[in-house]
Amino acid sequence: MVEAIKWHGDHLELLDQRVLPFETSFVQCRTAQETADAIRNMVVRGAPAIGVTASYGLVLALQNDASPQAFHAACEVLAASRPTAINLFDAIDNTKEGLGNPAGWQNPAAEAERIAVAYHQDDLAKNKAIGRHGAQFLAGQRRVLTHCNTGSLATSGWGTALGIIRQLNEEQRLTQVYANETRPFLQGARLTVWECQQDKLPVTLVTDGMGGHLMNADMVDCVIVGADRIAANGDTANKIGTSMLAMAAHFHGIPFVVAAPTTTIATKTLTGKDIPIEERPHDEVSHVRKNPITAPNTAVFNPAFDVTPAALISAIVTEDGIFHPPFKFN
Amino acid sequence: MVEAIKWHGDHLELLDQRVLPFETSFVQCRTAQETADAIRNMVVRGAPAIGVTASYGLVLALQNDASPQAFHAACEVLAASRPTAINLFDAIDNTKEGLGNPAGWQNPAAEAERIAVAYHQDDLAKNKAIGRHGAQFLAGQRRVLTHCNTGSLATSGWGTALGIIRQLNEEQRLTQVYANETRPFLQGARLTVWECQQDKLPVTLVTDGMGGHLMNADMVDCVIVGADRIAANGDTANKIGTSMLAMAAHFHGIPFVVAAPTTTIATKTLTGKDIPIEERPHDEVSHVRKNPITAPNTAVFNPAFDVTPAALISAIVTEDGIFHPPFKFN
Repeated sequence: MVEAIKWHGDHLELLDQRVLPFETSFVQCRTAQETADAIRNMVVRGAPAIGVTASYGLVLALQNDASPQAFHAACEVLAASRPTAINLFDAIDNTKEGLGNPAGWQNPAAEAERIAVAYHQDDLAKNKAIGRHGAQFLAGQRRVLTHCNTGSLATSGWGTALGIIRQLNEEQRLTQVYANETRPFLQGARLTVWECQQDKLPVTLVTDGMGGHLMNADMVDCVIVGADRIAANGDTANKIGTSMLAMAAHFHGIPFVVAAPTTTIATKTLTGKDIPIEERPHDEVSHVRKNPITAPNTAVFNPAFDVTPAALISAIVTEDGIFHPPFKFN
Repeated sequence: MVEAIKWHGDHLELLDQRVLPFETSFVQCRTAQETADAIRNMVVRGAPAIGVTASYGLVLALQNDASPQAFHAACEVLAASRPTAINLFDAIDNTKEGLGNPAGWQNPAAEAERIAVAYHQDDLAKNKAIGRHGAQFLAGQRRVLTHCNTGSLATSGWGTALGIIRQLNEEQRLTQVYANETRPFLQGARLTVWECQQDKLPVTLVTDGMGGHLMNADMVDCVIVGADRIAANGDTANKIGTSMLAMAAHFHGIPFVVAAPTTTIATKTLTGKDIPIEERPHDEVSHVRKNPITAPNTAVFNPAFDVTPAALISAIVTEDGIFHPPFKFN
């Protein structure tokens, strides 16, 4: 299994997911600002992995300056790095709560480190549980379509949606994974395919518009995706392109499964309308890996996420078990 | 308006759509085989443009060898160049019927040329009529999402889906065109955006997975697409990625309009299940403009078309008028 987030005691080493699968290189973070930059620039991506990374970013902040003021500033810098990823706020709150009132701080850097390592290990255990529950829900489905990257690169290891796929494979119930390339950032083509190949899962690359045909031609049995934020009513923000897969799955009567740790559920976010949708730089759409695909100065729209209506979701699989519709998380 | 197909009396000049918008170059065809190659290699694409091109290919065949045997062979070579494009067969049949029994042929090359030129002009007139009918159907819709390229590059001029968009613009009723990039071949990013820019239509590029979000965020009022083949029951084969847009439009309750000349309607093709789906080379998916986007030797699936179920189509707009569901073309 690929280890994308490595903590070295005094710095954080992140596998640079922007250049995979063409290069294997690492980015070193020694400050909270460098960690926030790595998140914003998508060196690391995937909501659970962002949460784990932010936890270590706070350790770095406290190692550099253990004052409550510096810690507070680091929390703000990290929180602003990827505003759709709810796990980011969960991770920051987790460290804040673990450290408690600054009046009582003894060695906050060491304590934050203990909290971050536990958070990291805990996420891995949750992934395994998600995998087991998801595989249980999918009794007869062996051919899976997935979107974006939700594997060991997107989490602390194993994966959410890809964790279910891995579990199906361990149970010898997986016959085919179709990985959407996931434009504009190509997380599927670059990362999911590579991860599946590393672990010898049967993976085939398709473009994001092919899901309807795969379903119509009876080539897939289910869609499994991750989530960046799940509202209290079950509306789910995930990588742009997800909601159309849900509509297609609904039309074809096949299960559409969302896999995420419970930290992804934002109980105070009532519906999808309350989820802010991040817009990302235009050159991600107008270019592919730095090469232009359109005329210069073309107007572009680049929302990073879309919201899948809860009504289209067959199950939300978490480490605590399987939630069935209608969803009510508050 | 761009002229993509130019007939010069003894050869055919095709604007090379593979290199647009980065280069403006032309491919010369002097034989039916060269014409078939140009169709297969997508120098020219779009069902109506393919039909017009094939008509000229038959003229070239007869200019080179006016025997019925050579003509028959040229018909076969051209028919095999892009099997999903029903207009190809229509164009070939049109010339065959126009020439009549070889026993009565006088100057078949000159006669085929007259037929091809008329076919070309007729397609343009049909496009204009499609535009007028479509704009009539769309009473209040001003923001349009479209897929692939259906404009002057894909037809003999003006366009089918883009013809409706042009007509809306002429009537000052168009406020926004969203053009799907249309992976894998990027007809939207490369051609539709460029064509719209040439004619000053307000166009914004999006990736193929963004349609659901555009609808959910109330940024589009309708989807207009072309067609490669329409079955007797209204099931419509069009560029891969189309059917999911129809599912999304259906879910959001906005019109999904198919625009095509009646030659695209295959009355003997009973349903979408009877439409063969062409599979294209894998490097179109694994690469973008010759640059790899995935690990080497990645397994790929590359169907060029999908079938939109008739139940999801609000109207099929032809030169003869607007057809409403349920469709019955035989």
